[in-house]
Amino acid sequence: MDFIKKLQKKWTENKFVCVGLDPVVEKLPKIVKQDFFEFNKAIIDATHDLVLAYKPNSAFYEALGPQGIEQLKKTVAYIQEKYSDVPVILDAKRGDIGSTNEGYVKFIFDYLNADAVTLHPYLGKEAIQPFLDRRDKGIIILCKTSNSGSGEFQDLKVEGKPLYQIVAKKVITKWNENGNICFVVGATYPEEFKIIRKIVGDVPILIPGIGVQGGDLEKIVKNGKNGRNQGMIISSSRGIIFASDEKDFADAARKEVLLLHNKIGSLLGV
Amino acid sequence: MDFIKKLQKKWTENKFVCVGLDPVVEKLPKIVKQDFFEFNKAIIDATHDLVLAYKPNSAFYEALGPQGIEQLKKTVAYIQEKYSDVPVILDAKRGDIGSTNEGYVKFIFDYLNADAVTLHPYLGKEAIQPFLDRRDKGIIILCKTSNSGSGEFQDLKVEGKPLYQIVAKKVITKWNENGNICFVVGATYPEEFKIIRKIVGDVPILIPGIGVQGGDLEKIVKNGKNGRNQGMIISSSRGIIFASDEKDFADAARKEVLLLHNKIGSLLGV
Repeated sequence: MDFIKKLQKKWTENKFVCVGLDPVVEKLPKIVKQDFFEFNKAIIDATHDLVLAYKPNSAFYEALGPQGIEQLKKTVAYIQEKYSDVPVILDAKRGDIGSTNEGYVKFIFDYLNADAVTLHPYLGKEAIQPFLDRRDKGIIILCKTSNSGSGEFQDLKVEGKPLYQIVAKKVITKWNENGNICFVVGATYPEEFKIIRKIVGDVPILIPGIGVQGGDLEKIVKNGKNGRNQGMIISSSRGIIFASDEKDFADAARKEVLLLHNKIGSLLGV
Repeated sequence: MDFIKKLQKKWTENKFVCVGLDPVVEKLPKIVKQDFFEFNKAIIDATHDLVLAYKPNSAFYEALGPQGIEQLKKTVAYIQEKYSDVPVILDAKRGDIGSTNEGYVKFIFDYLNADAVTLHPYLGKEAIQPFLDRRDKGIIILCKTSNSGSGEFQDLKVEGKPLYQIVAKKVITKWNENGNICFVVGATYPEEFKIIRKIVGDVPILIPGIGVQGGDLEKIVKNGKNGRNQGMIISSSRGIIFASDEKDFADAARKEVLLLHNKIGSLLGV
């Protein structure tokens, strides 16, 4: 099933939580013995029935070299085999010229078998085309990122409007021939979110910045939902996966997911 | 030795050619049996005395999964051990929020031991700080990229000036406390190059787009050199490494490097 359809099915089940699978050696519970896959597997088994998606960030796996890449591959394969209705977003924030992006497409979609990827817009559509051509995959473009300094370039005024709005407008009107475009908008910018949702319509928006980064969930749900009360991929990582570093870490993660799931449900009135 | 010093030493030897080590399985000479490291090693041994730098692009290695990463690691290690005066630039075009960039820093500088990396500017300085903090490493920011569609965002006017000029100005004035900032400017945009060189002063500029992409070398050398007739990292990949797919591929690569080296030398009058 393609990425957008997987999301839509989960949204009809009122699922909105995306779990960021971002392990760090120093923070792993002793019980998993620094094995990222074993750690992820326990988290996935404990949360799969509550979540909209999983989102491993490539950086945390690359930090370990080839073993990290193998554990990332095993993680994605586990989800795709056991819980194939839950889409996997590779948070990789890539973006090169076209011929080089073909290498990334191979890595992310063919080797890892992810359902979607995050990308930088800076090189333009022509460069991103090898990604866009994969109609079954979600192509998630950075628009307004969650970090405190994201305004340095993203808020610069282009014809009176901040660059992130121009990115939203250009990408939604010119890049979406295959209907596979999505955006990243940080939960830390709820006012900007309102404007972006108006510009891009009902397309899916990946929302990092809930949890440790301090995004305001109430405002985000209010400003981020689309016309069908859907369209949000609300991502939390550290607050969920490191909820406990004891034996009960997977149960603790489930509790955090359930808490977030219930909060969103209550804010949406579902 | 740090990245900038390695470059400066090579520039005093009038070396300007950067070889892009971007292997593709389908294009490898039969003799190297699809082994990226063996291929690179032959190219490196045949060209090390002529080059300013090597630049493997991460995408081509990632495309193979963990084996690719291992071959990338072996390639960088080979250069660092045998030809340690030649710097290695990892063309990775990364860029995430700060805490995540720490993972990329580990991968690129600690695991791979590269001397420099290419990065997207879109998330701003605050996000890029973990890279900037590595004073011995080259932090090469995408400014005006070589692809034909790079103008879609990079040429948008911000206060009357194209975004790529604003990126150049902000980065050189605000990101360079450690003196490790460099830029990427495509050889396919010689007029833009002239303006960027004025804005950024004498700092190193990585210049892809010579060769297959069709950049005009004469204009680039004229507009791209700095006040000391240096400052250019002129990169060619496919035109050099795939010059022949027969047994003589390394010699053929050397011939292409020498040709480019001599052309640049004659344009600079050195």
